[in-house]
Parts: sequence; C-alpha cells; structure tokens
Amino acid sequence: MSTPAKSTPGGPLVAIGGAEDKTSEAEILRRVLSLSKKEAPVVGVITTASSVPDDVFGEYHEVFSGLGASEVLDIRIRERSDAASEQFVEMIRNSDIVFISGGDQMRLTNILGASPAMETIRAGHQSGTVIAGTSAGAACQSQTMVYGGPATDSLRKGAVQMAAGFGLVDGIIIDTHFLERGRFSRLMEVGATNPEYLGVGLGEDAAVLFEGDVMRAFGPGHVIIVDSSQISGSNVFELSDGEAVTVHNVIMHALVDGYGFNLKDRRVLGPEELRTEGLEHWVANS
Amino acid sequence: MSTPAKSTPGGPLVAIGGAEDKTSEAEILRRVLSLSKKEAPVVGVITTASSVPDDVFGEYHEVFSGLGASEVLDIRIRERSDAASEQFVEMIRNSDIVFISGGDQMRLTNILGASPAMETIRAGHQSGTVIAGTSAGAACQSQTMVYGGPATDSLRKGAVQMAAGFGLVDGIIIDTHFLERGRFSRLMEVGATNPEYLGVGLGEDAAVLFEGDVMRAFGPGHVIIVDSSQISGSNVFELSDGEAVTVHNVIMHALVDGYGFNLKDRRVLGPEELRTEGLEHWVANS
Repeated sequence: MSTPAKSTPGGPLVAIGGAEDKTSEAEILRRVLSLSKKEAPVVGVITTASSVPDDVFGEYHEVFSGLGASEVLDIRIRERSDAASEQFVEMIRNSDIVFISGGDQMRLTNILGASPAMETIRAGHQSGTVIAGTSAGAACQSQTMVYGGPATDSLRKGAVQMAAGFGLVDGIIIDTHFLERGRFSRLMEVGATNPEYLGVGLGEDAAVLFEGDVMRAFGPGHVIIVDSSQISGSNVFELSDGEAVTVHNVIMHALVDGYGFNLKDRRVLGPEELRTEGLEHWVANS
Repeated sequence: MSTPAKSTPGGPLVAIGGAEDKTSEAEILRRVLSLSKKEAPVVGVITTASSVPDDVFGEYHEVFSGLGASEVLDIRIRERSDAASEQFVEMIRNSDIVFISGGDQMRLTNILGASPAMETIRAGHQSGTVIAGTSAGAACQSQTMVYGGPATDSLRKGAVQMAAGFGLVDGIIIDTHFLERGRFSRLMEVGATNPEYLGVGLGEDAAVLFEGDVMRAFGPGHVIIVDSSQISGSNVFELSDGEAVTVHNVIMHALVDGYGFNLKDRRVLGPEELRTEGLEHWVANS
C-alpha cells in the first residue's frame, strides 16, 4: 500500500475547512470545546495567519465565551520575536485548547516555525491539549502543506504550490474551502506527484478529528478524501511545467458528519463502526 | 457492471467544455472541421442557447471561415416556431457540421425538443454529419442533462438540477466548465443517485469525440471521468432534501489530449491504444 498516514501521538487534533459557523449552532466550535477535559476551558486563539487579527480575535472571543470558555486568550503573535516571547509561550501553556485562525498559512509556518511558541504547541499536543485550526490553521497541520495553486485547473505540472507544514499529521495533505473553491484538481495533482499522500479536502463548516489511525468527520459540511494509492497511470514525470497532467484511477470518498476514515487501511468507517457519540467525549473514551 | 454508456450510432459527435480557443490555435474547432469529409465544409451554427446570438454567431463565423469553412450558416432558431421553419431545417440539412453554441441548455431542449429541426439534426447525425456542441451545446447531448446546481457544494440531496436532454449519448452525464467552476461535487451527486451513469466533466478548452464505445479526449484542457459504478456506500436514499450526501469509492480519471476511455469497459485508453493520429481523420479510419 503506502506510507501510513496518521496523526502524531497526542491530544485531540482538529482541522476545520474554514468559514465554520460562529453565530448560529456553532456545531464545530462547540465540539472543539467539548474535546477538552474541562467544564470551562481556557482557549488560546492564535491569529498569526490573519491580516485582521482584531476582527478575528473579536469573533472567536465572542463565540468561545458564549459556548462556556472560562477565558479566551489573545495570543497575538505577529512576528518571529513575538513567537519567542515568554508572555505568549505562557498563554499557550495555560490553554486547554489552542485554536489557530485562518489567513495565510505561509505566515504561520514562517513566523511560528522553529519558535518557542511552536515548541510549546507541540508539547501541549503531546500532553493532551486540544489543537484546532481552521482554513490556514488546518492546512498547516500536515508535513507538506498546500499554500497556493489555481482552483480553475491545478492539474498542470507545477501548478500546486507546496511547502513544509507543522507535521502534526503524517502522510496527509490537507486542503480547505475545498468544495466551495473547487479545489479537487489541487489534490488530484498532489496525488499524481506522490501517490503515498492521502488528500483530505475539507469543505467549509466541515471538520475532522484525528485520533491515531482514525479520522472522524463532523460538522455540517463535506470532507472529501482523495486516495491516489491505486492510481494506474500518469504522465506527470514526462511533462514540462504547465503541461496538462493525466492521472487514472483516483479514488474519492465524500464523508459527512458521523463518518470516518481509517488512515492506515484507507477505508471508510460508517457510523456504527465509529460509535460517533464518542466524538463529544473524546478524552473520556480514549 | 452497469448500463453500457455509448454514443448513438452515427457520425462524429463532439462535446466541448466551453470557452474553447477561437482566436489563437483554435485547436478544438480546427479538429471539429477536420472531422467532416469535406475540404471546405459548410458549418451551420445554432445559437439558440445564447442570449447574445449576434455576438456568438459573429465569433464562430470568423473562426470557422478562417479555418477554411466554405460557408458558415446562421441557423437563428430563437423560438419553437423557428424550429419548424423549412428555411432553418434546410440549413441544417445542408450543413456538413452542425455546431451548437453555449448559453442555457434548457432553452435548447425547450425550443428544439420534438421539432423538425431536431429531427433533422438527429437524421444528420445518423447519416454522418458532424455534430458538435460547446458548454450548453455539449451538456444537452446526454439523455439526462445537468442544468443547474451550486458549484459551492452540490453534494446535498436535490441540489443538482437535471432534466431530459437530446440523448445522443447513452448512460452518460456531461458537465462543462468543469474544473474552472469546481463542479466535481455535481457529478459525485449524480453518481450517488444513479451509479449506472458515467460522469464526463469537460474542462474549458477541452473536448471529447464519441465513437461508439470509445471516447477520445482532445484539446488543451482536462476531461474528468467520474465513475460511480464501484461505489461501496451512500446515505442518499435516507436523506431529506438539502442534507449532506456521503458517497464512498468514486473512481476518477483526469484525461488529456491523446487519451481516451472505453465506455463499455470503463477503462482508460492510452495514446498507444488509441492511435491518436486517427482523430484528425476520423471518417477515413472508421
């Protein structure tokens, strides 16, 4: 088969496709909160990816407070020196949930990469802190991340722009706003260039929870799995940059709330197999 | 397996994904011309789908004339009475190539359906006339056609709007502007509701030529095949309208110029199998 895709050992890791509901049922954010052990958890919000951190923090402050967070911390890391600041590191250390907002994933990896803040996030993840990210904050969770490429047709050699991410999940490439921006061809090109990587396309208001080999879908939106491990042919290595890529036998799955995927066996898991009621009480059942 | 997908017996049938190049190489339109037996063929252009027939006809007149058509006929059918007019029927009868422009496919089926003009197109097809259509003019070629549904996420029960098309190909649903408008989820929903139907998603400036069981891709763009015959599960029949559809094990292929697909065996055909040089001399080799 292929390199096993899995999340690194640690606490709950949640990737959200962007534009999650913050004003109505807030289904996804509510569940993110419920994944912590605490009745009234402390949520640290990292807005590094965003160019409008005031607005973004304000929104999350309101929704997380409304959902029962005891505190919502403004971890306002804007440049690399901030990512070394003991003040922000301490905020991350005190968070039961670290929530990484959307924006530009390259800002995230550039500013947080190899920083004390990132070390603290990683240590928190290993000791059970909930790590959640939306849009750019989700895309950066994989070891190799997608950060650009035209939605209009990325099946052109070299069209998909990739860079190194934070590596909280292995063997997976996460893409976001997936159905809404028609990004299927991005993950098809990723699969053509390396069939070992499993593509996880998160729609808006859709999320996945990684637990070891299992990935659970939740929220109102769709999660599309792009499995290229069985591809039977492609011309990608024969092409020059910009030429049209052919790729055959890509397997896709559309998952919705209650369904999951076994990353090791590359197999869809139905609700009965998943006992989805466990999702809201992740720690208790794990 | 499933209902065999195939084109009805007859002359060359070409479906184009829209926005084909008309001003540079005009690769697709050039090949459409070459599919007729004639040195200087007569091209009849049907602009019924369009709300700006003057502009559309003008463009095609220019490009087809430039490519060597002896005549480009303005088959200006705007309403059902026009579709019964002997003048237009005669134009269709005199065309070596009938070219159906883009616009609204519902106008096409509403105005041309069960008309003398349509009968004449069908008879022409059976006797070897080249029939080609772009965008709406391509979507209408299938027996069941897609005419609407949000590109942002059509994997919601009832989101894809379908109606009866002209049925020049069986067992296939054609969608257009496919990569550019991110319409993958439309054909995934079609496949979930009826796995017998093979989805053919035509990118812009991409085309397919149907010849019996074989479909050949040509042009600079991509052709995406969405094969749902192997799907292993879906919740679609349990849902109410608007609820999110899950579907597992959809097989996709991205084809480019020179590749093809065997509609009966649902198998990709490589360039060596297709002897692509035959494409430009379709009639001579058939």
